[in-house]
Amino acid sequence: MTTDASEPFTVSPEMEQWLDQRVEKLLAERMDALVKERIAQAMKRDPAKRKVAIIASKGTLDMAYPPLILATTAAAMDADVRIFFTFYGLNILKKHGANKLQVAPIANPALPVPMPNILGMLPGMTPLATQMMKNMFAKHNVVSIGELLQQAIELDVKLIACQMTMDVMGFKREDLIEPIEVGGAATFLGFATGAHTTLFI
Amino acid sequence: MTTDASEPFTVSPEMEQWLDQRVEKLLAERMDALVKERIAQAMKRDPAKRKVAIIASKGTLDMAYPPLILATTAAAMDADVRIFFTFYGLNILKKHGANKLQVAPIANPALPVPMPNILGMLPGMTPLATQMMKNMFAKHNVVSIGELLQQAIELDVKLIACQMTMDVMGFKREDLIEPIEVGGAATFLGFATGAHTTLFI
Amino acid sequence: MTTDASEPFTVSPEMEQWLDQRVEKLLAERMDALVKERIAQAMKRDPAKRKVAIIASKGTLDMAYPPLILATTAAAMDADVRIFFTFYGLNILKKHGANKLQVAPIANPALPVPMPNILGMLPGMTPLATQMMKNMFAKHNVVSIGELLQQAIELDVKLIACQMTMDVMGFKREDLIEPIEVGGAATFLGFATGAHTTLFI
Repeated sequence: MTTDASEPFTVSPEMEQWLDQRVEKLLAERMDALVKERIAQAMKRDPAKRKVAIIASKGTLDMAYPPLILATTAAAMDADVRIFFTFYGLNILKKHGANKLQVAPIANPALPVPMPNILGMLPGMTPLATQMMKNMFAKHNVVSIGELLQQAIELDVKLIACQMTMDVMGFKREDLIEPIEVGGAATFLGFATGAHTTLFI
Repeated sequence: MTTDASEPFTVSPEMEQWLDQRVEKLLAERMDALVKERIAQAMKRDPAKRKVAIIASKGTLDMAYPPLILATTAAAMDADVRIFFTFYGLNILKKHGANKLQVAPIANPALPVPMPNILGMLPGMTPLATQMMKNMFAKHNVVSIGELLQQAIELDVKLIACQMTMDVMGFKREDLIEPIEVGGAATFLGFATGAHTTLFI
Repeated sequence: MTTDASEPFTVSPEMEQWLDQRVEKLLAERMDALVKERIAQAMKRDPAKRKVAIIASKGTLDMAYPPLILATTAAAMDADVRIFFTFYGLNILKKHGANKLQVAPIANPALPVPMPNILGMLPGMTPLATQMMKNMFAKHNVVSIGELLQQAIELDVKLIACQMTMDVMGFKREDLIEPIEVGGAATFLGFATGAHTTLFI
């Protein structure tokens, strides 16, 4: 490149080449380190790390615990947490529903107090197994589902009721607790696609 | 640095130092902003956001819905979606199997029409509960599992049958619908490790 | 900018402007390519891709397989894998417990050998269904849960027992196999928030 006619000074091609080499050397030395540092910082601040997206699809006492324990713990660790309640999980959001959830005493050979299915299916065994599990949790100071739900709300966990489940199962907006949002699979996915932690429970 | 003997001009050390400082200043001013902008753009385009990896491990009517609803919704949102059908989930891919899935009327106290286990275990109750659930979905215009599966295929959701499950459960390739792929846990993980949304259903 | 009085040479404003333009041109040309390349490299090396975080919450023979098969496969693919055993899943870590897990012959219409619930609930049917499933796996050279657990340990999969579950279900540290860690939901989340693959099983 020769200098413009308008420039009141001359730069020899040699000078130009020297300058370019010098600048390239400085660029190579400084830029690489800076870019790596900036990328490392950005990775550490990656917003996906702070987002936790949970689907709660079960409506039993035992399987209502994991979404709420994980959500409140994550929120206490300063994460942006949303739970999408769908299928049987919607029962957790029913007014006065959280503390009415039950546990099935059959079809789970891993129950803490195993019981032959032929006994477990007898009338009265579901409430009995439910009470036993509630006692086990209470004895070890684990809070109830209702209390966990309240903690989740206080920690700004966003609770989303599945619109389709509401329609299919005949839940009206006023049947559910406040504050919640109502949304669909797209609502959940819009958040989950930007989250590292995504769990279907 | 002194100039090479081959260079037909001289640069004083002061000139060199001035140049270096000037270049460093320009670098610092311009590079930081550009690097931050480029990183922000890259994070927004993060390919992990567009990938949704789902495992369908259940073969009941109720739990066949979530993987297919999430997959078709994500695909409609332009995501690259793959479902790995394993264990009981393989039944969903059986020829004419999707619409034969059933729901268990026992061991789930959260069923929309709760039923004592002692009634639910009677012969005929599984088909009855299945028909009731199908009616609930149909009444609210929710498409059948077979139709959802067809939508998934049309939306380019990749369906992968678990090779090990096929071996163990005695499924042959011709027992399953088309188009699907056959693969193992490594096939799923190869995709899931690059995906933000990963769900075991 | 005029040159400092201390500099023993003069640079005309025109010279300065020319230099700046030249440097900016070089910056624009070289920096963009380098930044894009570095970001692409960083994305490829994204540590979230190498982390697989699994929750094992079920204690049945069938549902003990998925966390262990996925974990050992991921570890063999050189991933950093952690499994958090919680609720019924803790049974997998019980001393001599892995090979005592059972499968429920009821409430799952998708079982490979379907059985009416009224038969499945009879005494002796849970051990029978368990033996049938074990035979199916053995016949196809799928290793047992105990062997998979051993493989996981040899592949450096980190096994974490849920402290709360231990308290509630009355497990003592010496009831569980070695080597494991004991931790809570925060332990799991601290790892999962930096992992692409996160699965609740």
